[in-house]
Amino acid sequence: MAATTPDVRCDTLLIVGLGLIGGSLAAALRGTGFCRRLLAWDRDATALDAAMAAGLIDDRPADLEVTAAQADLVVIAVPTLAVGEVLERLHDAGEPVLTDVASVKGSVLADARRVFGGLPARLVPGHPIAGRERSGVGAADPELFRQHRVILTPHADTDRDALALVESMWRSCGAELVRMAPDHHDRVLAFTSHLPHLLAFALVEALAREDSSEEIFRFAAGGFRDFTRIASSDPVMWRDIVLANREAVLASLDHFGATIDGLRAQIAAGDGGAIHESFAEARAARNRYLGWLDRGREE
Amino acid sequence: MAATTPDVRCDTLLIVGLGLIGGSLAAALRGTGFCRRLLAWDRDATALDAAMAAGLIDDRPADLEVTAAQADLVVIAVPTLAVGEVLERLHDAGEPVLTDVASVKGSVLADARRVFGGLPARLVPGHPIAGRERSGVGAADPELFRQHRVILTPHADTDRDALALVESMWRSCGAELVRMAPDHHDRVLAFTSHLPHLLAFALVEALAREDSSEEIFRFAAGGFRDFTRIASSDPVMWRDIVLANREAVLASLDHFGATIDGLRAQIAAGDGGAIHESFAEARAARNRYLGWLDRGREE
Repeated sequence: MAATTPDVRCDTLLIVGLGLIGGSLAAALRGTGFCRRLLAWDRDATALDAAMAAGLIDDRPADLEVTAAQADLVVIAVPTLAVGEVLERLHDAGEPVLTDVASVKGSVLADARRVFGGLPARLVPGHPIAGRERSGVGAADPELFRQHRVILTPHADTDRDALALVESMWRSCGAELVRMAPDHHDRVLAFTSHLPHLLAFALVEALAREDSSEEIFRFAAGGFRDFTRIASSDPVMWRDIVLANREAVLASLDHFGATIDGLRAQIAAGDGGAIHESFAEARAARNRYLGWLDRGREE
Repeated sequence: MAATTPDVRCDTLLIVGLGLIGGSLAAALRGTGFCRRLLAWDRDATALDAAMAAGLIDDRPADLEVTAAQADLVVIAVPTLAVGEVLERLHDAGEPVLTDVASVKGSVLADARRVFGGLPARLVPGHPIAGRERSGVGAADPELFRQHRVILTPHADTDRDALALVESMWRSCGAELVRMAPDHHDRVLAFTSHLPHLLAFALVEALAREDSSEEIFRFAAGGFRDFTRIASSDPVMWRDIVLANREAVLASLDHFGATIDGLRAQIAAGDGGAIHESFAEARAARNRYLGWLDRGREE
């Protein structure tokens, strides 16, 4: 799906937090006509310097609250557990449409309820399913969201126009929009994203603590590199995610633990038939759902 | 490292088992001058048909024992637990140099001791650290071993000329040779290869058994695809490997289990500091050892 001309536009867009996602959003929106002015705020001045130098943003206003009050749309692109603090600062900053990009939606809704005493109609929680191991605005990529899904979790009272504006923004970046209930989002992502990251971090950590870890890494083949690539992800971002989605993460971890315990018992018992069945089932499931996605890469 | 002109050559090479590795070895050796005749035997006639049609081999003799007795070098490229049976058939089949490509070396040595009543001087156990999720001779790739490591685990009585011949074969394919003690090989590979495969199979299996598994897979991002790619590997090959290397696999699994249990406790307790430390340590270790390998891919 190519980026499309925006069906709804706004005058001033403010991105709060210029990391990989915030920076890539700015880069993706350049030249789409979605907004007239693209501003960014970050507590890290060097990120703003870099974004200005790269021509990603029009300006870098010093005052978050004043600027937010003048914006039509504010995208909160900070680590998950920092969303609440940004919402507090935006409490009295006018009535811009608010959206976020956090990987957990339950914690954002809880933060919003706490700060606003309920869910504002202008709040449209969102989560682009896109990322990279490299972090920071220096890794910004205008193509990051193209043909990637963005999950929005609007609530019962979400304003239609606010929703249409956020949808238009993501469509302008070439993303595919999906709506989902926030609880469901958090359970699905626990399994497909949060748990794999946890396992990759744990595997590399276990390995790094071995005596001969350097040698062990030296003999790691391509499969190991692929398997652990996500362990190079930003530790702050992932600490926030596993804490914000704690219950779903622990549930998926326990579900996984039961499966691996079963496999362990089969291996200890030398039960080749059962092991083969488990592996074959996994291969069939993966090929059914994801195999076609790899083909371009392998050939 | 480019493929080099072989320093030691042989007349007749026989590959027993034409899967991805056997087929890729045949493809890699074509035109190198390493051997005059390249023969293959497989219990699956269609694999031999395909290899003949693709011009990978010179002939496909029907009788394994007779052909082995005429060969200078026999490469056993069957699944790990089938090596013993092939050794039995080769017991009275002349005195060719014998090597293998199995991912576990302890089980091959045990099989050889059982079959030959000791380790033959002409046996040079080996393991190319190269693979792919796709299996079978149809996936054969002449470049599979280029710049990949091949670990040889010669024993105290291994014949020098036999070792030189096997080393020359792998060098002709562009591989880098390493020698290692078999126990050490099996421990290192348990961690870097066997355990990650086990975790990937278990994760996909756990997911496939969820009620909404199809939807869950649909929202899997790139990290999940990379993480689980190895779960598309051949179930027979991997069943054999985890059984053949059972003790080292269980030890690495338990070591990993202790790490993940620690992380679970930190998440349950909401201990952000400890979680961050674990993730940061993992990222630092991975980037130190493997980060540079990914750069070409990300950019």
